Amino acid sequence: MTDRAYGREASRPRPITSLQNDRIKAVRALDMRKARRETGLFVAEGASILVTARQAGFKVRTLIYEPQEASGSVARDLIKSALADHAEVLEVSSAVLAKVSSKDNPQAMLGVFDQRWGVAPDANTQNADDLWLVLEEVRDPGNLGTMIRTVDAVGGRGIILVGNCCDPYSRECVRATMGSIFSTPLVKMQREEFLAWRVQWPGDVVGLHLRASDDFRNVAYRGPVMVVMGSEGPGLSAELTEACSRRVKIPMAGKLDSLNLAIATALTLYQIRGPHLSI
Amino acid sequence: MTDRAYGREASRPRPITSLQNDRIKAVRALDMRKARRETGLFVAEGASILVTARQAGFKVRTLIYEPQEASGSVARDLIKSALADHAEVLEVSSAVLAKVSSKDNPQAMLGVFDQRWGVAPDANTQNADDLWLVLEEVRDPGNLGTMIRTVDAVGGRGIILVGNCCDPYSRECVRATMGSIFSTPLVKMQREEFLAWRVQWPGDVVGLHLRASDDFRNVAYRGPVMVVMGSEGPGLSAELTEACSRRVKIPMAGKLDSLNLAIATALTLYQIRGPHLSI
Repeated sequence: MTDRAYGREASRPRPITSLQNDRIKAVRALDMRKARRETGLFVAEGASILVTARQAGFKVRTLIYEPQEASGSVARDLIKSALADHAEVLEVSSAVLAKVSSKDNPQAMLGVFDQRWGVAPDANTQNADDLWLVLEEVRDPGNLGTMIRTVDAVGGRGIILVGNCCDPYSRECVRATMGSIFSTPLVKMQREEFLAWRVQWPGDVVGLHLRASDDFRNVAYRGPVMVVMGSEGPGLSAELTEACSRRVKIPMAGKLDSLNLAIATALTLYQIRGPHLSI
Repeated sequence: MTDRAYGREASRPRPITSLQNDRIKAVRALDMRKARRETGLFVAEGASILVTARQAGFKVRTLIYEPQEASGSVARDLIKSALADHAEVLEVSSAVLAKVSSKDNPQAMLGVFDQRWGVAPDANTQNADDLWLVLEEVRDPGNLGTMIRTVDAVGGRGIILVGNCCDPYSRECVRATMGSIFSTPLVKMQREEFLAWRVQWPGDVVGLHLRASDDFRNVAYRGPVMVVMGSEGPGLSAELTEACSRRVKIPMAGKLDSLNLAIATALTLYQIRGPHLSI
């Protein structure tokens, strides 16, 4: 992706019908984590998510659409504003669209955006009702996307990804966020870095742990709160478990030993943020 | 699958190295919904899920394993008990295993089981703290599997699938249940059938609805409870919405208009069943 591709000369959509087109190949390449890391870009699909992106202040770098399918007023507005922003706008054939869109839920429009990574929040400026979610080595992009959506739903401040997590900017994760990828701050930290930074945190650091003895519903959480969740399967590392001021557990019936990670996270986030939410 | 394949002569594992083997092809065919419907069979993968199946009283019809990988004591016990039950036991090469196991999370053992479908619960014999989950036209197998797991976690009685739902016995759904597929009764009903049967239900029928005016946390639910959830996207049909005695809503911050279906379901199930659960 050269700067020239985003030059000011493009005032109308550029038609593309060749599957071998270099720009199309470059967008397709963003399915690979390596390409996303090198370019700092990611793909979001579907007109409604593109509208959310725009409302959240994300400017599309490349907009791709198939004119027969993307013909409504929402699509036309997106194309118009992309052109006004001097974004690259590519009008493609169905065959080309099929090449760049996802297989299981193809959309007639997609956009390429710059990833945004935040810095560690300033522990001293957090409000008592602020909440951050900390995820250690989460592996499943669907789970991660669902958790991003849930953090948005409870009005959480953002998510800190600790260690080797799956990429929130993968297509599967972005789709699972349903647009919340554009409104939820994301921060990356290595474990040591997190442990050092955590020391100044003024409120509770709450870890969900199968061997905890407190029911998550019976704790008076001291804000601002960080909720810390381990990966699917292994759960929290000993180091992060140790760093928690509170270790809690969700009760379960029968012989089950765990819930899905995104479910356990949602129950905990609603328990803590619930008093601040109303319909 | 002929009856002969389950005959009593098999007292030892049968080695298979050919990718063209008919039995292997028949198991692979169970990836297709049509084949699952015609045979009434399904596939579950991984030793720990196979142990759960056994504990829940499911007898494996066909057990497939790769001997280098599936060499521990759990695997040996599973093979031994399958042979004792006169199940078909196939010892396969890695190449054959790769053909029948799932791509994204391959396991060294898998089993073929009979599907189980229950009948509509007798409305007059339900206890006041019983809960059933009703899903209308759920589409995503990962969501469905997660909801089956959550119903198990809260001690729910089972799930009623109304209308055209995705298949709970698909590989993706079975995997997402983490074994709860074997302990959670499943019932299928068409919409009209459900509406007619619902009339005798003595407790609340609770529908989650975006236009409801009651916060789901502020309702005194009258048991036995049915929780009714619509499909991803469209939500509940007008008919099922009308059939609810309570329509409730989960509060959200910001501009979001919905939660992931499995998340919304879990929050509601824990709200209602919570008083009966302890750690």
